[in-house]
Parts: sequence; structure tokens; C-alpha cells
Amino acid sequence: MVKIPRGTQDILPGTVEKWQYIEEKAKELCQRFQYQEIRTPIFEHAELFLRGVGDTTDIVQKEMYVFKDRGERDLALRPEGTAAVVRAFVEHKMFGYANQPVKLFYTGPMFRYERPQAGRYRQFVQFGVEALGSEDPAIDAEVIGLAMNLYETLGLKKVKLVINSLGDSESRSAHREALVAHFQPRIGEFCADCQNRLEKNPLRILDCKKDRHHELMNTAPSIIDYLNSESTLYFGKVQQYLQRMNIPFTVDATLVRGLDYYNHTAFEIMSEAEGFGAITTLCGGGRYNGLVEMIDGPSTPGIGFALSIERLISALEAENIELPIKQKVDCYVVSLGDSAREYSVKLLHQLRQAGFAADKDYLNRKAKAQFKTADRINARFVAILGEDELQNGKVKVKNMENGEQVELELAQFIQQFSELSQ
Amino acid sequence: MVKIPRGTQDILPGTVEKWQYIEEKAKELCQRFQYQEIRTPIFEHAELFLRGVGDTTDIVQKEMYVFKDRGERDLALRPEGTAAVVRAFVEHKMFGYANQPVKLFYTGPMFRYERPQAGRYRQFVQFGVEALGSEDPAIDAEVIGLAMNLYETLGLKKVKLVINSLGDSESRSAHREALVAHFQPRIGEFCADCQNRLEKNPLRILDCKKDRHHELMNTAPSIIDYLNSESTLYFGKVQQYLQRMNIPFTVDATLVRGLDYYNHTAFEIMSEAEGFGAITTLCGGGRYNGLVEMIDGPSTPGIGFALSIERLISALEAENIELPIKQKVDCYVVSLGDSAREYSVKLLHQLRQAGFAADKDYLNRKAKAQFKTADRINARFVAILGEDELQNGKVKVKNMENGEQVELELAQFIQQFSELSQ
Repeated sequence: MVKIPRGTQDILPGTVEKWQYIEEKAKELCQRFQYQEIRTPIFEHAELFLRGVGDTTDIVQKEMYVFKDRGERDLALRPEGTAAVVRAFVEHKMFGYANQPVKLFYTGPMFRYERPQAGRYRQFVQFGVEALGSEDPAIDAEVIGLAMNLYETLGLKKVKLVINSLGDSESRSAHREALVAHFQPRIGEFCADCQNRLEKNPLRILDCKKDRHHELMNTAPSIIDYLNSESTLYFGKVQQYLQRMNIPFTVDATLVRGLDYYNHTAFEIMSEAEGFGAITTLCGGGRYNGLVEMIDGPSTPGIGFALSIERLISALEAENIELPIKQKVDCYVVSLGDSAREYSVKLLHQLRQAGFAADKDYLNRKAKAQFKTADRINARFVAILGEDELQNGKVKVKNMENGEQVELELAQFIQQFSELSQ
Repeated sequence: MVKIPRGTQDILPGTVEKWQYIEEKAKELCQRFQYQEIRTPIFEHAELFLRGVGDTTDIVQKEMYVFKDRGERDLALRPEGTAAVVRAFVEHKMFGYANQPVKLFYTGPMFRYERPQAGRYRQFVQFGVEALGSEDPAIDAEVIGLAMNLYETLGLKKVKLVINSLGDSESRSAHREALVAHFQPRIGEFCADCQNRLEKNPLRILDCKKDRHHELMNTAPSIIDYLNSESTLYFGKVQQYLQRMNIPFTVDATLVRGLDYYNHTAFEIMSEAEGFGAITTLCGGGRYNGLVEMIDGPSTPGIGFALSIERLISALEAENIELPIKQKVDCYVVSLGDSAREYSVKLLHQLRQAGFAADKDYLNRKAKAQFKTADRINARFVAILGEDELQNGKVKVKNMENGEQVELELAQFIQQFSELSQ
């Protein structure tokens, strides 16, 4: 039989309600913070990600789903959200909007061909925000605050915010030189990837999974020591604002991002819940003042984050948090006999038209089985329609919480049921 | 510069609210009708659609986005939703669930490589439902009722429901023979596709766009005349139920579906709004009792529909319907001077923590420009924080509807603002 593609998952009733709840909360928060939704296509020209994510990254080189459409275009399923949002920002000239900065959010599936493992899928859902057009450190704090607020709203207690500054381009250049000087003499002891990185992008050596225990790693020059005074001031303001917002954080100078268009603020939010697993990062974000230009737009500062809903759900599970999800069925219509069963279609439709969540049996089952279903789905009321009731223009309604039963007029059913169920 | 792929669209703030509103209403309706959400991956093994949509259809032969992943799997971006829902139904053995029938809905992007034109995109969004496990004609009426209810809820007046029956397999065979006998003698006058269809699937000749004006089309035997008594009875019940639900409809014997696993009820909902354009179908659906078996599940009856949100929005525009979308900003924080500006970050965060939609300036603009923004975004209140206020522990709040201004205590700001804004 045809199965689901490896590394992807179906989200079924019983689980999907968590997703709905989380997405609803995220949307609500974005309304409070005044971020508006944007939806970009599932695929883009592959070129966009070569530029926007970086053609030397694993994401683009090893993990991206690339394909040609029937018009021979090189397309790619989006591996992340920021590049496409920036493409849309440029294409629709949003830099000319009256309201600046432009504050956007997105939710949707992303695609990376990775080895599937616990909590890691080839199709996963990201929620992210981007604020384009402001260099005020207060908006860095706002973006971080929004992410932290989501975790807090959902009840997570064991989350840890880590921040760092990559500085401006002057600071980054100075740090880069120091890194090259540090690793050059012993670069032969590092992996082939790192040897390549030395000239191209020495910062990414610090991210290497293979060489992470090499002794030069711990003694590598820290970006913090190379921040110029402007960058130090900027980073100081971000920290001040976080303090004013009562958001606890740790500064970690090893938190870096390799691509050239990242600068100033970088942050990650991790779960510290026991048993959460090896991948503890829930959310990653930072400032990217060079990205809009890279995608052929006018020089525009930007900052954003992305977080995976799958990991968020894992974190909730690790902390044993039950989301307050309620399934509600106002009325289950039980019918006895053929003409009552046929009439119940009308009754049911009336209930739904009036806004009630309602259902009936569709398997021609006996009364007992119908009541059993009403119980199982936790219906608040059961409407009982037999041949006698139908002939007398009545319908019995039983309150399933207290067992009380009343008889309503069929002709005024909706009005009377509305009063009863208030 | 890198542009959006041809035939796709970005949905931007200002438009996206319509999508949110429609999807929210659809979800609400599904709750009333007790359909639960299911989410399947964006891509599936291509094989699934060869079976579930049909390997002779245009969708599969000409329009499907197919590609190989890095593991050489043949994958396809889903061109429709039903096949994947049925795949999930089989894979997760949902036929064994205690609650039967299993009633599901989905919303999400689908992909077809077609010539882009007004209202037709290569990526488009479908909302659909599937009810699996019941052959009660009442559920056919329920499914149709749900679709009609959505259009009604959104305010559409000019929609037309057309229904037909394709009968059971006995009826279909009899009709098929009659069709072959009808077309065979003059099949040479038809296009190559139709000549192929004659033996494989003569019903699809009736759908042919090239030969639709051939005189044999109008005189072709109608399925209605070949329904056996069981099928006639079934179709009669569906109509009776629609009448009981006060849903007007027309029977159109030319409404057919070519694939073998379709049977009994078929329906379409069209827009009759003037200027809606050439493609008037908003929604299509029907019964497919043979599909679950085709996808290696146990014989299970099913019925569903799918509708495009893009076309729904076009229909709303054609009828000049404005959805009641409200953007709400409770408070805009205006600050004057450096320390007030810094303090305003805290004030703003407090407002948002308390559940208010709020914003501030992030471009270091003068008071006048800040007030202008507050006006533009229609803020209900403006909180004004100057150096004097800050020193005295006060903040001014102006009601933008009536111009009234009061002074609140900074130390009790949230409490006092909550009272004020009730």
C-alpha cells in the first residue's frame, strides 16, 4: 500500500487540536504586538535561497528539496521563511508603506531533507515574525519578547533565553581577522569543511559539529571583545530593554551566525525540561541588516525569529503541560423509527443553523447505540425523537450533566432549546 | 531580482484578513457539523495520486508537480486533498475508530501546473470535507448542507446548487454500454482523446472540451434513465433531505464524474453573480464508495467536497460583499524625549501582557508623526508619556473617539487603563 513519505507526519484529530490552539494563541499575540500575517508560496525559485539562506550552508547544499517544474524553472520547497518574506517585501515595495517598520508574521510548513529523528521531520511547521525597517534596539527586545510571551502564554516554565551580539560589520571584520589568526597555525588538525571555512567564513568553524571538542575551540577569540563602541552601546540597550520587560536572559558569546548579513542581536530560546532530548533549541532569531539588499531591495534593517511548532509541542510534553482544549457538542439527536430518523435531519440542520454544535447517527443504529455515542462524545444535551413525539409535535431533551429531561415543542424547538441550553 | 514563481501569489496584510476570516468561519462550521481537522503532508508518493485521482486524468498527466527527493523517491505536490485524506484514513486504521462515520476537514495549498489566468493559480487553497464510513443518504445531504452553509454564512446570495446521481455500479455499467452504443458508430468524428475514452471510460467523452458541440452530445443517453431502483431510491432520499433542510437545488443529468470509484451523489455549487467570469464552479463534490479500496483499505463508503478559497473570494467580490473584518488597536504609546522613549518600552510590554493590542514608534520620530501614526492605525487610545509625566509618575491617556483626556498613575497604569477602556 502507498504510505506517507518518510520523515513526514499526518496530524490527526486528537492531536490537531493542540496545533490549532497554539496557532490561535500565536495569532492572538501577533495581534497584540501588531504583527500582521503574510503568506508566501510553498515553493520559490531556488536562486532565492542560494542568496537568502546562503549557498554554502548545509540547508541549501544538502537539505533543500529542489526540482524543475514543467516549464524548466528551478524551484525549491522553502526550507525556511525569512528569505521569502523579504522577497515579498521587496517585490511588493513594502518599504514604501506608510506604516514603518513593517511587522509581519507567518505560519506554515517548511522542508528540509534531513535524517528523520525524534522531533525532527522533513516537513515541519514554523511560526516566525519579521520586523523590517527599524534599527531601534527596542524592536529587538519586542521581537524577543513576543517569542518569550508565546512560551509563557502556553505555560512553559523551563525555557532559557540566550542572547549575543555579532556587532556591526566593522566589529565582525575585526573578529574575523582574529579568528583566522587563531585557527590558521593548526588548521590542518580540523576537518575538510573547517579548512574551507577558514578563508570563506571562519565564524562557522565555531559551529562545526565534528571539531567541537578541539582545544582551540574554547580559546577562540570572542566576538564580545571585538565589538566597537557603537555595537557595544546597541547591545547594552537591547539588554536594558529586556530588563525593563522583566525578561530574564543569559549572554553567551559563543552564540553566532555564520552568514554575512547577520549582525548585532542574535538569540536562541532553549528548553531546559528534563528528558527533552538532544535538540534543545526551540527558537532562533536575530538581526539581519544586510539581507534585504542581498535580495535586491533597498538597504533596510530587519530582525526576526522562527520557531518550530513540533518542538514547542515536545517541550509542552516534556513539562507535562495539558493545553486547555475543550471539545464541545451541544446536542446529539437520537431518533427512534424511520420517520423520526428522517425528521431528525431537519432538527439537526436547524440546530447547526442556529450555531449549535450537533450531530446524529448515520449508521441506522438502535437507540442504545445512539445514546452510547452521545455519551462518548460528551454531548451536553440529547434530543430524543420517537414516532410518538413526532406525531404529537414534541421532542424530549435530556440534560446529560444532571439527567433532567423536558419536552419541547417541535415547532419552537430552536427557541426553546436556546433558552434551555443557556 | 528574484521574483515570485509564475502562477503563485503572496497574500499580504490588507488581503490576508479575508482569508483568516473565511478559514475561521469554515472551522466554526465544521465544529457545528462535527467535522474534525486533519493535516496531511504537502507532498505524497506520486503513486498515491495515480491511484486516487486517476492516471488518465489531466491533473495527473499534465498538471502534477512531480519530483524525486534526494532518496530517489517519486514524490508529487498534492493536486487535491481527498486521496491523501483517504491514505491517512487507511494508514492510521481510522476505520476502526469507535466514532463512525469518520468526519474530517482540511484546509491548505494544492498545486496544479496550469496556464495561469484570472482566479486560477498554480498554488491554490482548498477547503474540503470527507465523511467516511456511512452510506446514509442523510450524510450526503449533510455534506452538501455544510458547503451551502459556508457560502450563506459569508453572505453570498447568488449561488446555485446542482446535483445528479451516477448510480451504483450496476447502473453505471448499463449506462456505459448505452454510451458506447451511442458513440461507436460515429466515433471517427471525435477527437483522439475521445476515441481513446470510448473503450476505457466513455462517460468522460461527455466532459470533452473539444467535442462539446457535436450533435451526439445532446442526444447521449442520460444516466438518470439507467439508474436501477436502489439507486433511484437513494437519489430520491438525498433530494428529500435537501428539501427538509430548505436547500434549493436543480437536478442536472449532465453533471458526471469519469472515475470508476465515484457513484451515487455528485454535486456542484456555482456562482451566478454577474461578471464572475468563465469559471463559475465554486465547489465540487460527490460520493466515492470505491476509493478507500482503491487505496488498499477495507471497502468503505465515502463522500466529500472541495472548494477553492480563491474562487470564494472572487465570488464575494462579484457580489460586492464586504466581510466584517475589524482591525483593533487598543492603545498607541506616544513618547516625548529619550528617557520617556525608553520607559515606553515597559509600558507597551505591560499593555500587551495584559492582553491589549498596542504599539509604539520605532523610528525615533517626533510627537507629531507619532500622533499621525496613531490616527492612521485607528488606535482607540493614545498613551502620552513625556519627561514631566515620567518624573511625576503619571501618563496621559487620550480617548481618540471622543477626544477626552485623563491622567493615570504609572504605578497602576494597567489597572486604570483596563477600567478606562472597558
